[in-house]
Amino acid sequence: MSRDPVTIVTYDWVPEFPRGYVRDMRPRWTAEEAGIPYKIETVPLNDKTPGHLAIQPFHQVPILKDGDLTLFESGAMALHLADGQPELMPEDRTGRARVNQWVIAALNSVELPVMAWIIAAAFDKDDRAAANANDRLQPRLAQLADVLDGKDWLLGDRFSVADIIMVEVLRPAADEGALADHPVLLDYIARAKARPAFQRAHADQMAHWQAAEAERTNA
Amino acid sequence: MSRDPVTIVTYDWVPEFPRGYVRDMRPRWTAEEAGIPYKIETVPLNDKTPGHLAIQPFHQVPILKDGDLTLFESGAMALHLADGQPELMPEDRTGRARVNQWVIAALNSVELPVMAWIIAAAFDKDDRAAANANDRLQPRLAQLADVLDGKDWLLGDRFSVADIIMVEVLRPAADEGALADHPVLLDYIARAKARPAFQRAHADQMAHWQAAEAERTNA
Ligand SMILES: N[C@@H](CCC(=O)N[C@@H](CS)C(=O)NCC(=O)O)C(=O)O
Ligand SMILES: N[C@@H](CCC(=O)N[C@@H](CS)C(=O)NCC(=O)O)C(=O)O
Repeated sequence: MSRDPVTIVTYDWVPEFPRGYVRDMRPRWTAEEAGIPYKIETVPLNDKTPGHLAIQPFHQVPILKDGDLTLFESGAMALHLADGQPELMPEDRTGRARVNQWVIAALNSVELPVMAWIIAAAFDKDDRAAANANDRLQPRLAQLADVLDGKDWLLGDRFSVADIIMVEVLRPAADEGALADHPVLLDYIARAKARPAFQRAHADQMAHWQAAEAERTNA
Repeated sequence: MSRDPVTIVTYDWVPEFPRGYVRDMRPRWTAEEAGIPYKIETVPLNDKTPGHLAIQPFHQVPILKDGDLTLFESGAMALHLADGQPELMPEDRTGRARVNQWVIAALNSVELPVMAWIIAAAFDKDDRAAANANDRLQPRLAQLADVLDGKDWLLGDRFSVADIIMVEVLRPAADEGALADHPVLLDYIARAKARPAFQRAHADQMAHWQAAEAERTNA
């Protein structure tokens, strides 16, 4: 299906730490899997503007523009881009409900304890809070590993947009070492990262930050 | 439309603290708004069973059964029950994307800082972590209040399933005092609680815990 490109809005620049993880990965990767063309626009990170707030009420990125529709929430963008794409989202009501379930599981049941741990350990550097957060995160990861044991993807054999969101939620925690006791989850992430669509999305995000860095250095 | 009742699974008993807030409120309230009949089944809170784990991989409630489909994640249940109900979910692709966006905003951008604060303040009783969490929660609430200022509901005039999820995410924080500086949000919650469907769902949940308590006392 040929269609007009959508626009993904991300920051004009970020420091080195989040490069490769910024949540524009979620709509980028989904668009790559679905073969939907997209272009990139930016908003300034260091001078948050009213124009930015008008399209993202929490002053964050990413933002998706598709014709007249402007969306925030990377999870909603992924669902929107997957809508009508049977390779990412089953077409029957039951299949759709299961994919919604796993997208929401990633964004709520999993991202909540993941972010609590990252915030306590990496941002606040609060040892007591980080230990409490890790005590909540590890059993949740073990439960998720039980679900994925012997399966390629959350729905079984079939890859879906839920895997994109789940892997993007897990990847920063994996790279910080929190998944060391869960080889099933590390294998799942490795399988996802081997997909050409992931690799294109990731390389394009990294190229964006590299170009931004070069421009900043020359300015 | 007349249809077979769905089944909402919740705990057989909970202590007094979470009564009225247990997340079976989300599918209950959605079903009440949509006029979908439902019955209640229970799983034991204090003796978590393999049968429970088979239908909720994180050993939590609620769970929804609709014919052959079994769903976890209260947000996914609400979306499923709202599917095909124009009074809760617009029928066009753009309207659906906007509702998904606000459901996910509630479950991710809002529930994440709300739960971080509740966990630090009420469960861990960790003052430093609670202060850090509150410093993140208050700006997020202020941004949400800006969105709702002058509007009845997240979509404007039109109530949707996103309001059910957003209000259920905010309600525990409101009742713990965290919304005191945000009258716009307190008014929004009050408007939602005045809906007959909310009141039926809430009264039925409270009656369930009361019956459970009576049975426990007699046992
Ligand atoms: N729930 C949002 C979270 C977005 C988010 O956390 N964005 C980060 C970049 S990955 C950001 O903009 N951070 C800067 C800020 O919060 O001010 C989504 O999934 O889109
Ligand atoms: N993300 C889940 C969260 C469910 C949840 O937190 N359920 C609570 C009751 S409201 C629970 O079962 N707590 C007991 C436990 O976590 O073991 C959903 O929205 O359905």
